[in-house]
Order: sequence, then structure tokens, then C-alpha cells
Amino acid sequence: MAGSVAGPEIERLIQLLARLPGLGPRSARRAALHLIKKRDALMTPLTAALQVALDRIQVCKICGNIDSQNPCTVCTDPRRDPSIIVVVADVADLWALERANAVNGRYHVLGATLSPLDGVGPQDLTLDALVARAHETEVTEVVLALNATVDGQTTAHYITDLLQEAGVRVTRLAHGVPVGGELDYLDEGTLSAAMRQRTLF
Amino acid sequence: MAGSVAGPEIERLIQLLARLPGLGPRSARRAALHLIKKRDALMTPLTAALQVALDRIQVCKICGNIDSQNPCTVCTDPRRDPSIIVVVADVADLWALERANAVNGRYHVLGATLSPLDGVGPQDLTLDALVARAHETEVTEVVLALNATVDGQTTAHYITDLLQEAGVRVTRLAHGVPVGGELDYLDEGTLSAAMRQRTLF
Ligand SMILES: [Zn+2]
Ligand SMILES: [Zn+2]
Repeated sequence: MAGSVAGPEIERLIQLLARLPGLGPRSARRAALHLIKKRDALMTPLTAALQVALDRIQVCKICGNIDSQNPCTVCTDPRRDPSIIVVVADVADLWALERANAVNGRYHVLGATLSPLDGVGPQDLTLDALVARAHETEVTEVVLALNATVDGQTTAHYITDLLQEAGVRVTRLAHGVPVGGELDYLDEGTLSAAMRQRTLF
Repeated sequence: MAGSVAGPEIERLIQLLARLPGLGPRSARRAALHLIKKRDALMTPLTAALQVALDRIQVCKICGNIDSQNPCTVCTDPRRDPSIIVVVADVADLWALERANAVNGRYHVLGATLSPLDGVGPQDLTLDALVARAHETEVTEVVLALNATVDGQTTAHYITDLLQEAGVRVTRLAHGVPVGGELDYLDEGTLSAAMRQRTLF
């Protein structure tokens, strides 16, 4: 194997790179080689960036976002509407909504969706913290921005029940035709939802 | 963008990860998030492995291989036949030949193949060092293990000319049917080469 040729240091690097999503053993080898070739232009700055991230990045104690400040930039932004909490499963979803500039409220990251088949139960999600936040007087709406999958919708129902006595409006993302989407590729549930929720042109 | 949400540290990490072969902007974002979530299990050891590689890995001054010792493990291995030099374009090819356990000689890494269209000329390859090594008395054969592409074969011809007075046999890899390969997917050149170079069953 490559380990016996190039030494244990490179083999270790390849093994760790192969654990990144999107890289397999073969592409990890290519990535390691690329890093070594681009030592000054890429390997040194990447190592430094990882070290900076290790030193500085924290999980926001309010919402579960990832940031170099705690509470995070979103939670401390005075321009954000404090009456709305947008519930997401994962930080990746939070980033997607921010890229879309779709949210003026704050977030709550659950960490996962309920998934009985994968052994993910309510205790694995940050539900206690969400219930506590929903009871704060300034909060009037909780938007469930969860995947339109079975697990996502199971989680949405579970949270809706949990928040029944919190005195907040619980809403969810609209179903509809994706921008650029072609009608005859969409399932019937999406099409009928898009028709029901049609808006003025 | 994500940078304004998660801070410049994560944005910088994503940008650098996106420059690895096999990762685009989207998968680099997923990789960064994965690293941050697997802080102890992945991010810390990967950062350490990169630092170790930065500290220790060098280019072998004899053959151009990459290793934590210089000269490299291959060049210093007394069981290797010193009369054979196997010329490869890239360290990745060296690793592939080693994984196949196909070589008992030593190597010479060119760094590239000649490619007039891409502006790669003889001065960009380690040809002077190769000619010097081929003139060493113990060296009797130079095997050109180059891609069977136009650039690879151009390079092979160029090196064959260069080594005319070095007193070595210049050989190249056999053409033939790849193991597991199906005949009717192969081009005619490969098939006729495989027929000419047929061996006893
Ligand atoms: Zn926050
Ligand atoms: Zn070497």
C-alpha cells in the first residue's frame, strides 16, 4: 500500500481526508498529493485555518448555530425580529436559509430530526431549550423549517404538540413549485399544494 | 453568504477546502460542517496530521518521490534493483505502481508530461537529473511508465532521444487488454498490440 512507500504520515493524512463527506479513499489520495504539491499555497493556509477554527469556533448557547462568537452573530443582531424563531434540523439548513436571505427572525437548531428507524428520539434533539425559548414573552411565532420528508414531518408534528401551551403561532414552510422546476417532474402532492396556496400574479 | 452568518473563520476554511480536488463549493461547506461537528474525532486529528505532514514530508532529492525521509524509502531500500529506473510523470503514478507491486527498481518522477498545448516544455520536467542518473554505471535500463496518451507518448519519444548516448536500454509498458476488460470496448490499436504481444497460456 501507499503507506509502505510514502510513510505513515501521508497514510494517516489520507485516512483522515477519506472521512470527509464527498471524498472516498481514491479522491483522498489525490487530495493529499495535491496538498503536498501545493504546500505553501494550500497546505499551510488550510492547516492554519483548521487551527483557527479549532481555537475559535463554538456552538451558540442560545440557538445551536456555529460561530466564532457566543451567542452567535444572528442571535446578537439587533435588526433581527426577536418574535420569530425558525426551527431547523441542522446548521446546514440555517446556512441555506441565510444564503437565500429568507429569514429575518432567529433560529433554533434541533441537531437532527426524529427518526425511529435510525434510533433518533426526542431526547436527541434540543427540544427542552426550544420549549423554553417559545415560552419567552417576546416570542410569538415558531416557524418549522424542516425537510418535507417523513422524518421531517414527524418532527414537525411532534414539536407542534409540544408547543401547544406555549402561546405561540406554529407555522411551516409553504409547499409549492420550486423556482425553475418543471411541472411534469413534480409529484401530485406538491402540485395540489401549489394549486391550493396559489397567489395573485 | 455563509460568511456573514458563521464568521470569517468558517468561510476561510470552506474556501480552502473547496480547492481540494473532488470538493466543490457545496461539498466544501458540508465538509467544513462535518469537521466542526466531529471536532474531537476528526478535526483535531486532521489538523495534527496536516501539521505533521508539513513538518516532515519532503521531495526525495534523487527520484522526486514524496516521503518523510530524504532520500526516500524506495531509493534507500537495498532490496531494490539499482539497475532499473522507472520513469513516471507524477507521484500518483508511482503510488499506483507500488500498490500493484509492479516494480522492483527505483523511480524517477518527471513532475509532468510534455504538453505543448498547455505550455509544458522540457524545462518543466526533471530531465537533466534523469539523464545524469541514466549515465550512472549501475543503471542499465530505463522503463518509461507513462500514460498511453498523446502527451505521454510525446514525452516517451523525447526521453528516448535524450537517452540515446547513455548506454541504457529504454523500454516501455506493454499495451494489451486490461484485466477484466471486454474486447469489444477496446480500440483497434490496443487489440492489435495485444495480439502481437500475445504470450503462452
Ligand atoms: Zn445563536
Ligand atoms: Zn527517492
